[in-house]
Amino acid sequence: MYNFSCDYLEGCHPAVLKALTETNLEQNPGYGMDPHCAHAADMIRATFKCPEADVHFLVGGTQVNATLIASALRPFEGVLCAATGHINVHETGAVEATGHKVLPIKGKDGRISGTQVSVEVALQGDNEHTVKPGMVYISQSTELGTVYDRAALVDLYHTCQDLGLYLYIDGARLGVGLQAETCDLMPADLAKLCDAFTIGGTKNGALFGEALVILNPELKKDFRYMMKRQGCMLAKGRLLGVQFEALMEKDLYFTMAKKVVDQAMRVRDALLKRGLPLLIDSPTNQLFPILTDDQLEKMDEHFIYETWERVDEKSTAVRLCVSWATPDEAVDQLIELIGKL
Amino acid sequence: MYNFSCDYLEGCHPAVLKALTETNLEQNPGYGMDPHCAHAADMIRATFKCPEADVHFLVGGTQVNATLIASALRPFEGVLCAATGHINVHETGAVEATGHKVLPIKGKDGRISGTQVSVEVALQGDNEHTVKPGMVYISQSTELGTVYDRAALVDLYHTCQDLGLYLYIDGARLGVGLQAETCDLMPADLAKLCDAFTIGGTKNGALFGEALVILNPELKKDFRYMMKRQGCMLAKGRLLGVQFEALMEKDLYFTMAKKVVDQAMRVRDALLKRGLPLLIDSPTNQLFPILTDDQLEKMDEHFIYETWERVDEKSTAVRLCVSWATPDEAVDQLIELIGKL
Amino acid sequence: MYNFSCDYLEGCHPAVLKALTETNLEQNPGYGMDPHCAHAADMIRATFKCPEADVHFLVGGTQVNATLIASALRPFEGVLCAATGHINVHETGAVEATGHKVLPIKGKDGRISGTQVSVEVALQGDNEHTVKPGMVYISQSTELGTVYDRAALVDLYHTCQDLGLYLYIDGARLGVGLQAETCDLMPADLAKLCDAFTIGGTKNGALFGEALVILNPELKKDFRYMMKRQGCMLAKGRLLGVQFEALMEKDLYFTMAKKVVDQAMRVRDALLKRGLPLLIDSPTNQLFPILTDDQLEKMDEHFIYETWERVDEKSTAVRLCVSWATPDEAVDQLIELIGKL
Amino acid sequence: MYNFSCDYLEGCHPAVLKALTETNLEQNPGYGMDPHCAHAADMIRATFKCPEADVHFLVGGTQVNATLIASALRPFEGVLCAATGHINVHETGAVEATGHKVLPIKGKDGRISGTQVSVEVALQGDNEHTVKPGMVYISQSTELGTVYDRAALVDLYHTCQDLGLYLYIDGARLGVGLQAETCDLMPADLAKLCDAFTIGGTKNGALFGEALVILNPELKKDFRYMMKRQGCMLAKGRLLGVQFEALMEKDLYFTMAKKVVDQAMRVRDALLKRGLPLLIDSPTNQLFPILTDDQLEKMDEHFIYETWERVDEKSTAVRLCVSWATPDEAVDQLIELIGKL
Repeated sequence: MYNFSCDYLEGCHPAVLKALTETNLEQNPGYGMDPHCAHAADMIRATFKCPEADVHFLVGGTQVNATLIASALRPFEGVLCAATGHINVHETGAVEATGHKVLPIKGKDGRISGTQVSVEVALQGDNEHTVKPGMVYISQSTELGTVYDRAALVDLYHTCQDLGLYLYIDGARLGVGLQAETCDLMPADLAKLCDAFTIGGTKNGALFGEALVILNPELKKDFRYMMKRQGCMLAKGRLLGVQFEALMEKDLYFTMAKKVVDQAMRVRDALLKRGLPLLIDSPTNQLFPILTDDQLEKMDEHFIYETWERVDEKSTAVRLCVSWATPDEAVDQLIELIGKL
Repeated sequence: MYNFSCDYLEGCHPAVLKALTETNLEQNPGYGMDPHCAHAADMIRATFKCPEADVHFLVGGTQVNATLIASALRPFEGVLCAATGHINVHETGAVEATGHKVLPIKGKDGRISGTQVSVEVALQGDNEHTVKPGMVYISQSTELGTVYDRAALVDLYHTCQDLGLYLYIDGARLGVGLQAETCDLMPADLAKLCDAFTIGGTKNGALFGEALVILNPELKKDFRYMMKRQGCMLAKGRLLGVQFEALMEKDLYFTMAKKVVDQAMRVRDALLKRGLPLLIDSPTNQLFPILTDDQLEKMDEHFIYETWERVDEKSTAVRLCVSWATPDEAVDQLIELIGKL
Repeated sequence: MYNFSCDYLEGCHPAVLKALTETNLEQNPGYGMDPHCAHAADMIRATFKCPEADVHFLVGGTQVNATLIASALRPFEGVLCAATGHINVHETGAVEATGHKVLPIKGKDGRISGTQVSVEVALQGDNEHTVKPGMVYISQSTELGTVYDRAALVDLYHTCQDLGLYLYIDGARLGVGLQAETCDLMPADLAKLCDAFTIGGTKNGALFGEALVILNPELKKDFRYMMKRQGCMLAKGRLLGVQFEALMEKDLYFTMAKKVVDQAMRVRDALLKRGLPLLIDSPTNQLFPILTDDQLEKMDEHFIYETWERVDEKSTAVRLCVSWATPDEAVDQLIELIGKL
Repeated sequence: MYNFSCDYLEGCHPAVLKALTETNLEQNPGYGMDPHCAHAADMIRATFKCPEADVHFLVGGTQVNATLIASALRPFEGVLCAATGHINVHETGAVEATGHKVLPIKGKDGRISGTQVSVEVALQGDNEHTVKPGMVYISQSTELGTVYDRAALVDLYHTCQDLGLYLYIDGARLGVGLQAETCDLMPADLAKLCDAFTIGGTKNGALFGEALVILNPELKKDFRYMMKRQGCMLAKGRLLGVQFEALMEKDLYFTMAKKVVDQAMRVRDALLKRGLPLLIDSPTNQLFPILTDDQLEKMDEHFIYETWERVDEKSTAVRLCVSWATPDEAVDQLIELIGKL
């Protein structure tokens, strides 16, 4: 029974596994000081057209978020984000563990706007009795599958610059975020419209790994100290370098994501065609149809999915995720089933 | 030119790679809730004869140390360790980052005794103006390659119990620690003589990964919350489970370590036969010969090693590490060279 | 021009000053180990009928809140409070500085109910990816001047006990909170309906100082270590003991608060009589009338007050505070002015 | 029986009490925004000839140390100090509570030299696996009563500047430190030879309070946020301003300290005349004679003192402190007794 509940249920893309296998017995210096990391960083700088950027490789998303935030902010500063933001609701207080308050903004469908940021900053006031906003955190695509297009990101980044806030983009799902049809951002655009962003490997073809790209020179100094202090400097850092080399090779990262989005949109079309309502209309690989209890019963016979939230007495929103590893047949079968619901 | 500077320069043991490859396309729940983690935990409980233990899998040593310590101690409590202890000198303040003071004890050759712990606790005093010792941290083998034998560990554990301190053993190099000839501890002994210990994968056949074995029931509650908060709950936790399954299968972990120790002892014998002094006489895979500048020059032509410390005007102590991946021929060549130094 | 903006603009009650003066040249041990602290603690235990309680004296509210919360919670636990709670909005992230997330609940007029707590706990979910609620924080009176009566507190405390949460009451304004006409709680009731509470001195007659009363034995152990670690163990702790002796003597603390409430209610009656709307109808010493710009202009000629929030195009809610130090004449004049607004 | 165990057993100097009494019913804005704080800051800037300095008033020493250190350092940076430094041994890990490691240097008689700092920094190494030294902390006078003279302070400050470290001077006992005969530093010198220092009130005439003088512009920004976050912004901040006004008025702070040193030197002379050995030869108000058990027995009949450490089978070093509040007669009687020991 195929499991659509999440997009990191399988291991890694065959090209990544091949690279790991081929380099397995190489002797490489530890902690990211190896040639694979250096090469992967170069490839990323080239892809995102940011030749001056610092690139670091970390194992997971929670650790990269907390480490970058704690590195960028002074102790009394906080980080603004959508109330649904991963750092606010799904990281067990990892940001607070570093001493910083997360300042949630209501937002809409997982996104926040420049205006919303301005209002929140004004509400915080400008006095030492309240946390000082120091950064805005967004994710692309968001936790609800939505995306920021160029206009939205320009708006947000300009607001941040006006208010003296860093803008950090959590790209755990950056691949599908940039491949979404509603997203008109090229990789190089992204690198011009924020202070730092990550390129998520875990949910797009790697065994694990997030590449952190630091664009703002103020945030570069001594970041490796922060990584070590936060326990997120991988001993065999080469494992991250090798994987990202494979992912960046011939844009595998994006071609993979494009395929994922295409599959997801086939499912979305099927849902809409069948007349099923969507809790959020996501243009990426997470879909949130609302199904009745009867419909769910049928789903249960064939697929695994994630229960998202009870919508009313008879219906529940669920999450269906497509990943690079999802077989075409699984998608076909799902679409077939949807037609019959 | 073979590199003896460190024991984690290569990737993983072929058996581990094979297991990762074979399970790559399985769909598994994330965050360590998969059957491989469950199975690996069972294998560890069986090997160490601790059926009641909780077993968690984390990516790296610094994170497992900080997470366990922060989970076990109250905010004002500190952790005693040898001044050379990894948490004191090589983790960029990762323990202090969680708010806890490391209380170093001078020790000898990387080890500390029950008496030294008692003296230090007495010196701290029993009043609220000083940090309250709450735990003793040791490593097996130590950062200097030495080991605790049964008598030493019994002494330390009983002292800890008398003083109300937890005893935690960092087993980043547990394999060679237990396989050292001077160590008369069986795996099951270890599990009876401490409150928690780790089984290091990174330096003994895995790509990465440390298994944390929690024996004392007081330390078990809600540890997964701590892992998540500290950013060290791996999304595809199955990668850790799969690797430890392979390492525990037919005691590969220990047979690998035995081979490593044997190779290291061949090198040690060669050093002693040649009359070269040792900074520390280690029974495990890290050797610390003192070489003259002339001898180092010859070494430089054939091998890479780690400079440890300048001993006098003409000599330097170096570190030579053997690992599971070190080819027999490399060891042979090193021994041959030593004979000629 | 009398300043009604806040209730801690003056120094201390004459009885407190007298006690400080008379004891000034006594030699007393430091850090709260003096006979005055011991005596004041006894008086508090007698007044609140909690003979087993531990009583500690700290200088300020932010520090006592952060210290108690950090002492009570494990690192991954958070504290629930009203969104308007002092720890959430006016302490510059002092709780987060200790590594704990504040989990705001919308509440109503500064208060939260047992049901609201239950709903929030359910929303957090019971899994290690979210912060685990460990405590409920309320203030009595609240930041908006409202109070919990017996029924409300019983409801909240029972909910906390059912859910395994500590209930902590910030009593920075406990005096007026318990003296409010709408509050049917006696001091001894309070001590039976929470795990810890404070008795605020700063806003009720002392130069500074909050007495922390710990009722739940689980929270007592080693609290003095926490105080010292958090930098809030006053060297000359006797200053706190002496002040609370004076405040507890013949119930000065409560008679003072009663007078304050009476004065405030005179002002409230005048506001209502004059037909001025109230943003919140507070039964304690903070009043929140909504005044038009014209009315404010008249106020500005005679009194200082705190601007609270703009309500509409023409009106603003302001805060007027009465304190133990407010002269009767100032209240009379304020009432007279209100009649003319 | 007069108690010489410590220098903060009494309340405050009569001039301080008078000032507090006279200003008691003034209405002043809170949190240090009152005219007394502004005036006291001006007086301090004038006395120490540092017109550009920022001056903040905090209640206690542990909090000012932790707050300044946490404000100045990035998360992975540590603070070097003498092993006997207050932050290392008597603050229950308050610095570590903010996430920073204290890096102790052995030192001599409570002091450290530029050379010792350089050696320690070199030992730490310059790599991200160890804590990065960011600051040097010293105290004047030290915990052992010794002082830095001009040459020693110049040496240390230049070393700090060469190594990119801040130099912070804990002046909990700055009065006696600067009044010691062996100290050739004028107040204005001190302000030129460090990045920040404190002027201790608690041990020199105030009820409580430390003035923090920040000289280096890099350390000034947003310090009030740090104070609030660390729970050390006193609500009625005027109490600190008023006290420091009184202490700075006509140099009371220093004339008081001069008298204290003179009295202490009378005691020291008596000890030396009687031929009693000193554990440390302190030129300030803390004296450390070594007494035999017989001599202690006689002392016990007349005075209270602090036991410092057992020196040998028959003798113990004790601490005798003189303060501004010590009556001349108590000193006379002590000297008389010493003559008879």
